[in-house]
Amino acid sequence: MIDRTACEIRDENDPLRAFREDFVLPEGTIYLDGNSLGARTAGAAARAHEVVTNEWGTGLIRSWNTAGWFDLPVTLGEKISGLVGGGSGSTVVTDSTSINLFKAAAAALDIQAEDAPGRTVVLTQQENFPSDIYLLQGLTRQLGDHYEVRLVDDEVAAGLPTALTDEVALVVLSHVNYRTGRLFDMAATTEAIHAGGAAVIWDLCHSAGALEVDLAGSGADMAIGCTYKFLNGGPGAPAFIWVSGALQNRRPQPLSGWWGHARPFDMAADYTPAEGIRRFLTGTQPVLSLSVAEVGLDIFARADMAAVRSKSLELSDLFMTLAEQRLPDHPIEIVTPREHEHRGSQVSITHPEAFAVMSALIERGIIGDYREPSVLRFGLTPLYVGFTDVWDTVEALRDILDNRSWDAPRHQVRGAVT
Amino acid sequence: MIDRTACEIRDENDPLRAFREDFVLPEGTIYLDGNSLGARTAGAAARAHEVVTNEWGTGLIRSWNTAGWFDLPVTLGEKISGLVGGGSGSTVVTDSTSINLFKAAAAALDIQAEDAPGRTVVLTQQENFPSDIYLLQGLTRQLGDHYEVRLVDDEVAAGLPTALTDEVALVVLSHVNYRTGRLFDMAATTEAIHAGGAAVIWDLCHSAGALEVDLAGSGADMAIGCTYKFLNGGPGAPAFIWVSGALQNRRPQPLSGWWGHARPFDMAADYTPAEGIRRFLTGTQPVLSLSVAEVGLDIFARADMAAVRSKSLELSDLFMTLAEQRLPDHPIEIVTPREHEHRGSQVSITHPEAFAVMSALIERGIIGDYREPSVLRFGLTPLYVGFTDVWDTVEALRDILDNRSWDAPRHQVRGAVT
Repeated sequence: MIDRTACEIRDENDPLRAFREDFVLPEGTIYLDGNSLGARTAGAAARAHEVVTNEWGTGLIRSWNTAGWFDLPVTLGEKISGLVGGGSGSTVVTDSTSINLFKAAAAALDIQAEDAPGRTVVLTQQENFPSDIYLLQGLTRQLGDHYEVRLVDDEVAAGLPTALTDEVALVVLSHVNYRTGRLFDMAATTEAIHAGGAAVIWDLCHSAGALEVDLAGSGADMAIGCTYKFLNGGPGAPAFIWVSGALQNRRPQPLSGWWGHARPFDMAADYTPAEGIRRFLTGTQPVLSLSVAEVGLDIFARADMAAVRSKSLELSDLFMTLAEQRLPDHPIEIVTPREHEHRGSQVSITHPEAFAVMSALIERGIIGDYREPSVLRFGLTPLYVGFTDVWDTVEALRDILDNRSWDAPRHQVRGAVT
Repeated sequence: MIDRTACEIRDENDPLRAFREDFVLPEGTIYLDGNSLGARTAGAAARAHEVVTNEWGTGLIRSWNTAGWFDLPVTLGEKISGLVGGGSGSTVVTDSTSINLFKAAAAALDIQAEDAPGRTVVLTQQENFPSDIYLLQGLTRQLGDHYEVRLVDDEVAAGLPTALTDEVALVVLSHVNYRTGRLFDMAATTEAIHAGGAAVIWDLCHSAGALEVDLAGSGADMAIGCTYKFLNGGPGAPAFIWVSGALQNRRPQPLSGWWGHARPFDMAADYTPAEGIRRFLTGTQPVLSLSVAEVGLDIFARADMAAVRSKSLELSDLFMTLAEQRLPDHPIEIVTPREHEHRGSQVSITHPEAFAVMSALIERGIIGDYREPSVLRFGLTPLYVGFTDVWDTVEALRDILDNRSWDAPRHQVRGAVT
């Protein structure tokens, strides 16, 4: 049997332990919601102060050049690209995940109209994060309902060939399901989609920074994702978009603003898209939020993603094992896949009173979140979560469940995005 | 003749003088580029620190509710609405000006397709800020080139009836021209556009916070604008969108993300637009940039916009008078209209060597900006620019021009947006 001491020893021997110093968490808090909003980075406050006082206050308008503000989307994009196997010159940080999906899907459908004309279905998961579905609905409605957004459940999506009829132009998949933590095999799934004649956009919101991603190696077409979950960019920090080199210059995207113009300072009256990934930019970006997001990305420059993934799986293995050993008599079900190759960086457990149970955990300083319906969701971020944290969480859960020490919901637990 | 002492006396008697304390400018700097990037607000650093350390660091995911993060677009929107005569519940702060124009124009064309079918022209100014034109081009391209973006020059736009044929579905106008400072009469122009059967979207980037705007009273349909110029929201702070009450619930806009959903936390698979202005939201917003932008907006709660406008005109009158009196022998032309009713809050002066001249001014600590072609642009922000600043600027300009003390361009002076 595992005990707390064994967990303490694992923490002591954890090669990623030093990264805990890169984050500031409130005393006494176990934070298992980094897959909704990553923890505060230790350098964030100083960076924000520098941007406000020096770059804005002293540099003023000159900082668009001298402080590199204008290039922040590309500067940060390069750093993310290194984490997701995107290759240089293929990623920008800008706008929101939802808006980036609109750009990507619009460009992808435009390209497919040339490469595979007559296909009219956009396929996505019923269980995808709803905003992804909503954006696809908004896009296809705008295109005159020429296209149909077809929802399939995760099982069908995983066994894609049955759903991949020759009507399908585009598939949009969340690499890791926000609710269950189910992970797709990116390379195999991309290959199946391409074999079926469709293009694919991957939503990396729950995988970027959590596990090794190899976009270019998987032959993916496009990807989007956020920076404020496992990448610790800060609340609502701008999102990213990646487009494969082969597709970047095929078509402009419809949100064709001046930041995506070939010569933005010429003030020409006609839009000429920039070559490369810059054409996926639109308008002026929130410098302060971008700059603080960079602090989170810079931490990853020192982190070995293989080690991050390895610890993530050890943490979730431990969580599942303890849940089975110590919560045997309760109506719980672990809905996160047991197989490593199908698991993201979280453990999701259903319980009929999940909302109240999570509220009770939060009252004890253990912050996970609740997801409809009936899911207790625990995000495991290897850079600042330890094995003892997992032990203490399961023990608190056991105590709450054993003693039915929950009452009416006191917290409305809303997630930032997914 | 005016002299510097007369300017000093005017500063002493300036009823807005106390607002200078709400801003922090570098010692020895005269800042006349607040129409590109407003000055640092005195409260910005403390607000950024609070958001990073307390709201993010301590509140963590809970701050989406407890710190009001989720409602920031509406909270800030209400504050802007009060400045532009929008009425309550009609404005949100979100995304970029370019993206908000896409949403507004898409919704407006959708509505016009019902109300005035068969109209296929989107009319805008040749002299509009280019990104507005680019976005309209992107939108109409996406709509299958059913629509044509037609550019007319400012003179034609001002005498709209000649351009307002029965082909015109939508007119998009910058309330104040970013280059020349020319101001449209919003009420009269809106009336003419409506009489011609078209809808209008106003771009308020160069008027919000600079002069009194009465969107609802003018009968306008929609408006967009940024928060980082005269509203001093900080570099790249999110933009705003206003939609008249009569149009808000007519159609959804195509960037239909979960923040615009009627019940965003239900995680339903179908998009149902929220009632009211919230449907113009899309995805998660950059909290840090939004929070610091609020500091700028809160300053206006204490400012009388009539007094702001009055001082703005006094400053630009003084600038023009001094330029005429003290720079008589130089090849300059004031391109900003002399008539108050046609003037925004800037003075633009052409000179054949404008780029080099502006570089020389900046070397002396007087920051204006250069705009293609040949324009020296001086933004006049009444909350922190004084009459003596104008005197000193024209004197520096005189010295530079008299002595031809400019040389090859040393600064690349790029503006943030317009």
